[in-house]
Amino acid sequence: MTGHRITGVVPPVLTPFTADGEIDLPSLERLVTRMIEAGVDGLFALGSSSETAYLDDSRRVAVLEAVMGIAAGRVPVLAGVIETQLERVLTQVRVAERLGAAGVVATAPFYAITGPDETEAHFRGIAAATDLPVWAYDIPVCTHLKLGADLLVRLGAEGVLTGVKDSSGDDVGFRRLAMKNRAAGEPLSLLTGHEVVVDGAYLAGAHGSVPGLGNVDPAGYVRMHRAARDEDWVTVRAEQDRLAALFEIVFVPGDKVGTTAGIGAFKTALRHLGVIETNVMSPPMVVLNDDHARRIGAICDAVAVGAVASA
Amino acid sequence: MTGHRITGVVPPVLTPFTADGEIDLPSLERLVTRMIEAGVDGLFALGSSSETAYLDDSRRVAVLEAVMGIAAGRVPVLAGVIETQLERVLTQVRVAERLGAAGVVATAPFYAITGPDETEAHFRGIAAATDLPVWAYDIPVCTHLKLGADLLVRLGAEGVLTGVKDSSGDDVGFRRLAMKNRAAGEPLSLLTGHEVVVDGAYLAGAHGSVPGLGNVDPAGYVRMHRAARDEDWVTVRAEQDRLAALFEIVFVPGDKVGTTAGIGAFKTALRHLGVIETNVMSPPMVVLNDDHARRIGAICDAVAVGAVASA
Amino acid sequence: MTGHRITGVVPPVLTPFTADGEIDLPSLERLVTRMIEAGVDGLFALGSSSETAYLDDSRRVAVLEAVMGIAAGRVPVLAGVIETQLERVLTQVRVAERLGAAGVVATAPFYAITGPDETEAHFRGIAAATDLPVWAYDIPVCTHLKLGADLLVRLGAEGVLTGVKDSSGDDVGFRRLAMKNRAAGEPLSLLTGHEVVVDGAYLAGAHGSVPGLGNVDPAGYVRMHRAARDEDWVTVRAEQDRLAALFEIVFVPGDKVGTTAGIGAFKTALRHLGVIETNVMSPPMVVLNDDHARRIGAICDAVAVGAVASA
Amino acid sequence: MTGHRITGVVPPVLTPFTADGEIDLPSLERLVTRMIEAGVDGLFALGSSSETAYLDDSRRVAVLEAVMGIAAGRVPVLAGVIETQLERVLTQVRVAERLGAAGVVATAPFYAITGPDETEAHFRGIAAATDLPVWAYDIPVCTHLKLGADLLVRLGAEGVLTGVKDSSGDDVGFRRLAMKNRAAGEPLSLLTGHEVVVDGAYLAGAHGSVPGLGNVDPAGYVRMHRAARDEDWVTVRAEQDRLAALFEIVFVPGDKVGTTAGIGAFKTALRHLGVIETNVMSPPMVVLNDDHARRIGAICDAVAVGAVASA
Repeated sequence: MTGHRITGVVPPVLTPFTADGEIDLPSLERLVTRMIEAGVDGLFALGSSSETAYLDDSRRVAVLEAVMGIAAGRVPVLAGVIETQLERVLTQVRVAERLGAAGVVATAPFYAITGPDETEAHFRGIAAATDLPVWAYDIPVCTHLKLGADLLVRLGAEGVLTGVKDSSGDDVGFRRLAMKNRAAGEPLSLLTGHEVVVDGAYLAGAHGSVPGLGNVDPAGYVRMHRAARDEDWVTVRAEQDRLAALFEIVFVPGDKVGTTAGIGAFKTALRHLGVIETNVMSPPMVVLNDDHARRIGAICDAVAVGAVASA
Repeated sequence: MTGHRITGVVPPVLTPFTADGEIDLPSLERLVTRMIEAGVDGLFALGSSSETAYLDDSRRVAVLEAVMGIAAGRVPVLAGVIETQLERVLTQVRVAERLGAAGVVATAPFYAITGPDETEAHFRGIAAATDLPVWAYDIPVCTHLKLGADLLVRLGAEGVLTGVKDSSGDDVGFRRLAMKNRAAGEPLSLLTGHEVVVDGAYLAGAHGSVPGLGNVDPAGYVRMHRAARDEDWVTVRAEQDRLAALFEIVFVPGDKVGTTAGIGAFKTALRHLGVIETNVMSPPMVVLNDDHARRIGAICDAVAVGAVASA
Repeated sequence: MTGHRITGVVPPVLTPFTADGEIDLPSLERLVTRMIEAGVDGLFALGSSSETAYLDDSRRVAVLEAVMGIAAGRVPVLAGVIETQLERVLTQVRVAERLGAAGVVATAPFYAITGPDETEAHFRGIAAATDLPVWAYDIPVCTHLKLGADLLVRLGAEGVLTGVKDSSGDDVGFRRLAMKNRAAGEPLSLLTGHEVVVDGAYLAGAHGSVPGLGNVDPAGYVRMHRAARDEDWVTVRAEQDRLAALFEIVFVPGDKVGTTAGIGAFKTALRHLGVIETNVMSPPMVVLNDDHARRIGAICDAVAVGAVASA
Repeated sequence: MTGHRITGVVPPVLTPFTADGEIDLPSLERLVTRMIEAGVDGLFALGSSSETAYLDDSRRVAVLEAVMGIAAGRVPVLAGVIETQLERVLTQVRVAERLGAAGVVATAPFYAITGPDETEAHFRGIAAATDLPVWAYDIPVCTHLKLGADLLVRLGAEGVLTGVKDSSGDDVGFRRLAMKNRAAGEPLSLLTGHEVVVDGAYLAGAHGSVPGLGNVDPAGYVRMHRAARDEDWVTVRAEQDRLAALFEIVFVPGDKVGTTAGIGAFKTALRHLGVIETNVMSPPMVVLNDDHARRIGAICDAVAVGAVASA
């Protein structure tokens, strides 16, 4: 599948755990299969929503191997190579190559403080070291650095980058990225990571989405994508409004922040839907409680997420 | 006009200056008249784009008076009351009342550090002191404080706020605001200030826009608004793409930041179009140079802004 | 007193209010007199701690007039001219000139977004418009812009600036400022605004302090200053440790932020000490409650602040 | 050495590279030996200044092994275990245990977004998994999270933490940390990482320093520490002023940011002093050029850093 342009719905795959904190392969199989059957266009393993930052190297390998095995070539699988700097990224790239991923997704450097020159050299260094397509993952809330539209399009035009996963929360920047990408002949595939404004991103020029919430309701994102392709904007908006209402599950644990709230809510919803076994997260993340679960279940029921979703 | 719900295109009115730095009333008259004739639904005087932060009290009065006089009741005029804290805001509110503005637009407190309780008390204090409709102006890039959707909708439902001008750059937050506003019976009129993603904001539920770029191309924003009202999304997108291409003028002075680049580019474009006399800005802002002007003019010509635009 | 170099302890003067929210002149008189009698070297009226951001223009005039009158030439009085931009700052400068202040203290521009060129032009514009000495007030927590050491020393060497009040919370930056100032022949008087690390600032090269806590315990800051001048660092440290213990009063209202906590705690301590009548603050700031007051009083007693402090 | 309280000068050891980018063991041996002979009290391997974020796991092992071997028990060696989250940190802790480090130094979680509960559980999880003393590394410029004084002292009092390396740039916070630590019976050893304000940190209560610049001039930091211990503050200040003048080397590459400028300058100075062979850094960091080197050399000469420093 390598080399093909990936567009459409490419959810970041959650990592289900057993009550003992082990990777729960049967749950992972149900999760991935349900997304593929719902019609997603690809999968993104080892993204932020996969709890990658919490997994040691051996568990990262196990997760990627499992997702690749379950997908079994039905859809392309992108592999996150989330690491602080070039040398450490390349260690992860070797794993992705060995397991046959359809591409790698790398963030800007983080922890160590680098500037524009180093950021550009970082992506060039990755591309120079692999034949896999390289995606830039723009996620300043984690890396604390925004990737500029000019840099991204330039690297796209040169064949260094094949696409961008935009989780920057900067819709003005995304519009400019899409505009410059079009002017350059669309070298980049542009996917948005923001679950509740995918409709606006489609108007701006997105080629698809990487929605964490797509683990919970893949069929909704597939329907929205097809409607956008067909220029049926009334349906796009209606589907987006429904998914935005569903996304409120992440605000249920109002006393929790970031990863705990977001991934915790997704896992709790999937347990409610019978897709995965537990809502356990990697330590030191706190597991959501019964009260959270009850309210999250109620939201899922209210917006009618099918337990076995189909597009 | 007070009390009527204001929706649609409500540009923040620039403040033209003569070469000597005086308020240029003939230019202001041409500017305002052109926007009204293009079909805008209202005007926002003394906003950030009016260089309000640069004007002393007497010039603020002169500007508001002039805009009210030119509008002459043809469209409602909202008055910015941008000040650090309640007592100082109320001084500005008295002026707006005296001159007959259709509402006042207030930011969160700034400079002094305040929290959620003080922010809420700030807006309640304004509303308690005037019969004018009160709009919240969410502009964290200036105030360094984001207004929460729950607070805004609650104050809307209680009649404290009548609307929101959202310049927060947070499209996820705007979707949630629109969603909560609908659930509460739409007490708030929601206008977006982000010129290049108005289309997505319409999908999310915006009732209109407050585009600084609307000074340069009011007809474009009016066409986009009407197309959105008619659910003609292909036209909405096409118009937005054209306006986003025009917005590139603000990136021409790449060595300048913020206000100088944005307002400087708008003024330079308007001079190119023959609407205003000079591109002078308030000191200590640096005036854009001839090279900037040439490139800004070229962009205007390329996207075909009419010198005398009509909707 | 104008033109003399001001060093030593220069507290920012709080603005006491009556229960009705009016300026409480008798309390202000006691407050100012107590500081002068404790041996302070100057007073800073209309600073952040004076609630300047909360006062309308007429109250600003009243406060400055009152402080000048009470000081009656015994110590120099600096006047804050805290406003968003040049033109508005100059309006405040005129007042300071008329009332005979010994200098004006201006922040970087705020609210409107400006860059280094505009910041430099801002300070130059102030100095060009007045014969009063101009102090730069570096307070990024309010202005969201850090003043650079190179700019400050350059403006000092040119006679544009006469001193810096550093409330930047950047001790590394302050050391570099002091080092560059020495290399340039000490054109600037450097005063730190951070109550609990004045000792380190003295080692780094500070010429004095502008401590809000100096309203509560002026004698302590005067003793510390004299010990530093005498190179008696064991006394400096002991006094600083005692004042740092006293500063814990600002963390008592743990559920409050910024101005409310800081100024609220100072006022509550001064009421406990019998210096001012109430702990009322400008709306919309919330007044500290009885439980806060009890704990603040206990801290004051524990560190032995004299009701009528003397150096 | 495990279990002993470490105080004094504990430089973070740079990682020298050959022209080919391999770890340069002879240079590392000279660097470490010179610091030990200058009288440092310990060494911190695999810190930020060691380019740890740039080294893959095998190189991290090689570096720690080499530093341990060269130190050969003469001074204790702390090992950085800088990783995104608990599970990944523990992988690094196992290496530190195996090689016999005197303690591990862990930051707050980074990349993934966590809150206070997770941060506390993170440090508890590390301490529960090892018998090595655990140091908290407070470096918000890299982790984007400030560790609170109350949490640190509480974990110190419970025996979870043994010390803090403070690179927070928050001197007010450091004073409060030292004050609370004293009130709790000094459970924590407090070391500052800010090269130019170590003197103020000593006054505030620091037990020592972790200066990156200590690679370049270890003798100066040792002299300053001994003078502080002897309460000879005039010498402390003079030494600090000299070291602050030396620190200006990091501002020479003014067009470079963060790691490249800081570590690049240190390496370039050490090459000038004949201690290490090259100033090569890990890709994608850009190596400083000849002009930088000339100016850095001149600063070293001006402040008289001895090629073979001795205390």
